Amino acid sequence: MAVGKQMTGMLHPVPGIRMATVMAGIKKPGRRDLVLFELPEAAAVAGLYTSNAFCAAPVTLAKKHAAAGDTRYFLVNTGNANAGTGEHGVQAALACCQALAQAAGVDSRQVLPFSTGVIGQALPVDKIVAVLPQALTALTADAWLEAAEGIMTTDTRPKAISRQLQQGDKSVTITGIAKGAGMIKPNMATMLAYVFTDARVEQAYLQALLKQAADRSFNRITVDGDTSTNDCCMLVATGHSGVAVGTGGNDFDRAFDAALTEVFVGLAQGLIKDAEGASKFVNIRVEQGSNSAECLRVAYAVAESPLVKTALFASDPNWGRILAAVGRAGIADLDIRPVSIWLGPVCIVTAGAVAPSYTEAQGAAVMAQDEIEIVIRLGRGECMEQVWTSDLSYDYVKINAEYRT
Amino acid sequence: MAVGKQMTGMLHPVPGIRMATVMAGIKKPGRRDLVLFELPEAAAVAGLYTSNAFCAAPVTLAKKHAAAGDTRYFLVNTGNANAGTGEHGVQAALACCQALAQAAGVDSRQVLPFSTGVIGQALPVDKIVAVLPQALTALTADAWLEAAEGIMTTDTRPKAISRQLQQGDKSVTITGIAKGAGMIKPNMATMLAYVFTDARVEQAYLQALLKQAADRSFNRITVDGDTSTNDCCMLVATGHSGVAVGTGGNDFDRAFDAALTEVFVGLAQGLIKDAEGASKFVNIRVEQGSNSAECLRVAYAVAESPLVKTALFASDPNWGRILAAVGRAGIADLDIRPVSIWLGPVCIVTAGAVAPSYTEAQGAAVMAQDEIEIVIRLGRGECMEQVWTSDLSYDYVKINAEYRT
Repeated sequence: MAVGKQMTGMLHPVPGIRMATVMAGIKKPGRRDLVLFELPEAAAVAGLYTSNAFCAAPVTLAKKHAAAGDTRYFLVNTGNANAGTGEHGVQAALACCQALAQAAGVDSRQVLPFSTGVIGQALPVDKIVAVLPQALTALTADAWLEAAEGIMTTDTRPKAISRQLQQGDKSVTITGIAKGAGMIKPNMATMLAYVFTDARVEQAYLQALLKQAADRSFNRITVDGDTSTNDCCMLVATGHSGVAVGTGGNDFDRAFDAALTEVFVGLAQGLIKDAEGASKFVNIRVEQGSNSAECLRVAYAVAESPLVKTALFASDPNWGRILAAVGRAGIADLDIRPVSIWLGPVCIVTAGAVAPSYTEAQGAAVMAQDEIEIVIRLGRGECMEQVWTSDLSYDYVKINAEYRT
Repeated sequence: MAVGKQMTGMLHPVPGIRMATVMAGIKKPGRRDLVLFELPEAAAVAGLYTSNAFCAAPVTLAKKHAAAGDTRYFLVNTGNANAGTGEHGVQAALACCQALAQAAGVDSRQVLPFSTGVIGQALPVDKIVAVLPQALTALTADAWLEAAEGIMTTDTRPKAISRQLQQGDKSVTITGIAKGAGMIKPNMATMLAYVFTDARVEQAYLQALLKQAADRSFNRITVDGDTSTNDCCMLVATGHSGVAVGTGGNDFDRAFDAALTEVFVGLAQGLIKDAEGASKFVNIRVEQGSNSAECLRVAYAVAESPLVKTALFASDPNWGRILAAVGRAGIADLDIRPVSIWLGPVCIVTAGAVAPSYTEAQGAAVMAQDEIEIVIRLGRGECMEQVWTSDLSYDYVKINAEYRT
């Protein structure tokens, strides 16, 4: 189940970047479960990693290797998260990096490992190492969709977006892929995302751009409130376009920022539309808060309420559950009198009670749609935040009850 | 669906307390949906009320009336929560109190109203008022089970417990009823609970006893993390036994405290065993925390994780999800090395990774049981907290998707 149509459009190559997707038979045979990205020399690499204290072995190693600089490869496997595996897991991830480094003629610290899949099982190092030569041979500049498919777990469709900008006679490309499905909640939100550009961006600024773009996208989504042990989001700038992007604040800098945000938001929304069991895409916008933190608190209380989510699944305009979630969000001294709540264009709550104009038919009409907006006006200030989420369906339970079988 | 057997044993009358359960036809005809409790003069009454900012009209009024003292009646209806109904809702609740007061010859402030059911629909005052004379006539000292059934909504069975203690040749009784099912999370946890004793307890101390007992019971349970707009928990001491309970710290005071806690814990656990869609009862105990707050934070992160709850439903020992929930609970500077996690008697995680001794068969054997204990040792201090919860099943989704139909 997924909301709306598959959204990958034209996926432009990013000069300097090559990729390959091969079958390693990690969880089951016959599935393209290993993705290799090759970065050119001198590419800038920025990363955001899970805040989960039990972060997976590959995350620990990727952070360490990224800090050493000169990254040349991202090695991504699905089918096994290599999480909860302790020191053995770190050694396993390292062994994969070393094998790739040897075959490619680089240092093992120039390889960043990423894993996604079942937690707590030993990584099958031999299976991965066996297909690395094949992956290196298969590297190509134009296999984005295969890579997006290769990193999927319970995702039902690949997520990939591409944008191009012109700067004089030069063009700059941004292309990214992501996977998500479940265990999705900031910070970081997504399981895995890789975005590449041929713009020239200094590393420190690239990291700032990544943080900002993630805060507008992956850090504003939630499926079940669960933060994965394996979340990583990487942004790479090869510089091959010859166009520099910086803090100059000129028109191109702003256009790049906008395009980058578009790619990130598109990928993040793509994750929610394909969240486990999702039949609805829901935008929860909290307005008139006195600060960003309280807006997010209310937004997440609504977005993660199982009662709101089951009502969304049932297309039932049971707005009382939205009101109840707002009321328990933990905003100190919340005066409910100026609070209003809207379901799309329909005002459902005003002055702390059901709106006099509200009719069940109005609410039902909005709830029947695939994409729903819930707006909560707190009447306390000028701040606004929005969070994207999905509903809670039988299929969510089914997928997660049967995940390991 | 519910876990284990129905648990009401012998329900002893509480001298001074009478009750009646009648049909008002509030949501649908033919259901005993109105419960009236009569308290004797000079009874001490303590209450805890929902912390939800959108608290329902009857809660607002019950708090106000309780503060005026000399409470003589609790008037409880199901089928309609009278929440999100604004000033109209307050007027409706007040009209019911006034009608009862007039019929019973007391002041309307001596009546505390309570409602549970669908949020946001107008309370059918006429239907309630029409059956009040009948309820007053039907008052009896020994209809606890009917009262426990009368306050049910999506509960599949009544919750009621009774304990008796001896003090010399006098006996002291504690009898309580509660209803829960969904939208259950502290503070307060339960929708409605009423506990009565014939001990003599001063009001201020009774309130302290209630707070303490609730913190050990109703404030340690969660079904879906949602706090209802209508939660109320009331403790009444009639004094009719002639036995005083106080802070003296003598043997009887301690015995009373223990019996009261037993009643509260029994009712709270009864709510979880009959939680919406529950097929498992899960005790999550967090030990060796540096303070109570961080223990609770970890316990609730695990208890409310949809991924942990669906794994519990599937009887799947997917302990990686427990580990992931602990890791994202937001404990600053959590060192995972001393952390160990136990599924019943089976150690699943030690030193931050899967225990070397662990086998899937061991985990599966524990998960196959109806009642499961998860113990998380943080290795940071001496504090312990436990939280009780249920699993997340198809039936939870079904019940909540179809609640209003």
